[in-house]
Amino acid sequence: MKGKLITFEGCEGCGKSTQVRLLQEYLQTTNQQFLMTREPGGTKISEKIRSIILDKDNKEMVDECEALLYASSRCQLLKERVLPALDRGEIVIIDRYYDSSFAYQAYARGLGYDFVAAANNFAINNAQPDITIFFDIDPYHAFLRKGGADSTDRLELAGMEFHNKVYNGYRALMEKFPQRIIAIDASMSVDAIHNDVISLLKSKGFIQ
Amino acid sequence: MKGKLITFEGCEGCGKSTQVRLLQEYLQTTNQQFLMTREPGGTKISEKIRSIILDKDNKEMVDECEALLYASSRCQLLKERVLPALDRGEIVIIDRYYDSSFAYQAYARGLGYDFVAAANNFAINNAQPDITIFFDIDPYHAFLRKGGADSTDRLELAGMEFHNKVYNGYRALMEKFPQRIIAIDASMSVDAIHNDVISLLKSKGFIQ
Repeated sequence: MKGKLITFEGCEGCGKSTQVRLLQEYLQTTNQQFLMTREPGGTKISEKIRSIILDKDNKEMVDECEALLYASSRCQLLKERVLPALDRGEIVIIDRYYDSSFAYQAYARGLGYDFVAAANNFAINNAQPDITIFFDIDPYHAFLRKGGADSTDRLELAGMEFHNKVYNGYRALMEKFPQRIIAIDASMSVDAIHNDVISLLKSKGFIQ
Repeated sequence: MKGKLITFEGCEGCGKSTQVRLLQEYLQTTNQQFLMTREPGGTKISEKIRSIILDKDNKEMVDECEALLYASSRCQLLKERVLPALDRGEIVIIDRYYDSSFAYQAYARGLGYDFVAAANNFAINNAQPDITIFFDIDPYHAFLRKGGADSTDRLELAGMEFHNKVYNGYRALMEKFPQRIIAIDASMSVDAIHNDVISLLKSKGFIQ
């Protein structure tokens, strides 16, 4: 692979989308060819799959179905856009990739690592990220920073329990892949986080 | 599992759908509880997934995406309707199940057995059919019986090559699972095939 695959990961409210936008703005000031996309989605077919995954009417969706839909959306994006861009030597940044499936489906929903690995390993065709940036802020502080809702609300608390599991899933992935997944302290200011992202990617030689 | 899971398989034009209908009519004359459904589809979510798979606009869909969509549709149907019906002791008949994924995706599309097995094994949660009836007619004769199109047409012939691969896929599956997959000669008359289906299922004690 001539290009570099960079993925962004983190819990809800971690500031990831803001950082995607800031990195995009930075790369536009340079001469580097890049592709910036998101999961689930990023292609016509993947966006159709996304709409099934995110449709609130689909409450009865079982966890295994959800995990396989994420994997199907992922491999369409990968083969249709990501791999060709990497072959052209471009930088590819994806807002969420398979680590999200591990954190959310394998750990938080309890499907287990093996199920999610089986659904994904063939689908991703060995397209491992060159680096994965984990925007590290615990869900409770991300929630407070967002202005949150009533923290005594039963459903909000149930939500918090789920998001804590996601966070712990990411911590487990960091221990499993310490070379690939690098945490950045996402409790800092937006500018400070952006500077860390740029410094990290430059230090690896992935961007100029 | 208290009930029995019966699946119907075969190439295009094998007469499977007619036999599904005739078996349904037969079972309605008895006192047996049954669920008859089809793949992909059979639940609200699975039908939405079906519409993405079958949408002719989605020409750029990669084979891996297609295989994972079939698996996602399958596990939703399985958990939402099939497993509960089997738990209630019902007979469940599915018009196509995972053997279709093996014949079409693994063999004919060339994804290979391991990919399709990985996508399906966890999803189906050990819900193996008690019996799979293969409606055995080679694609060329099925095509002629349907009235066919111009057999010298290049695209029709390309289609024929694909359907021959599907057929050979089914033959390979029959060799792999000789106890479970039973062929019925689907070149016979509709009534003769129906009688064979009923005799076979009665001889196994799956229906009365």
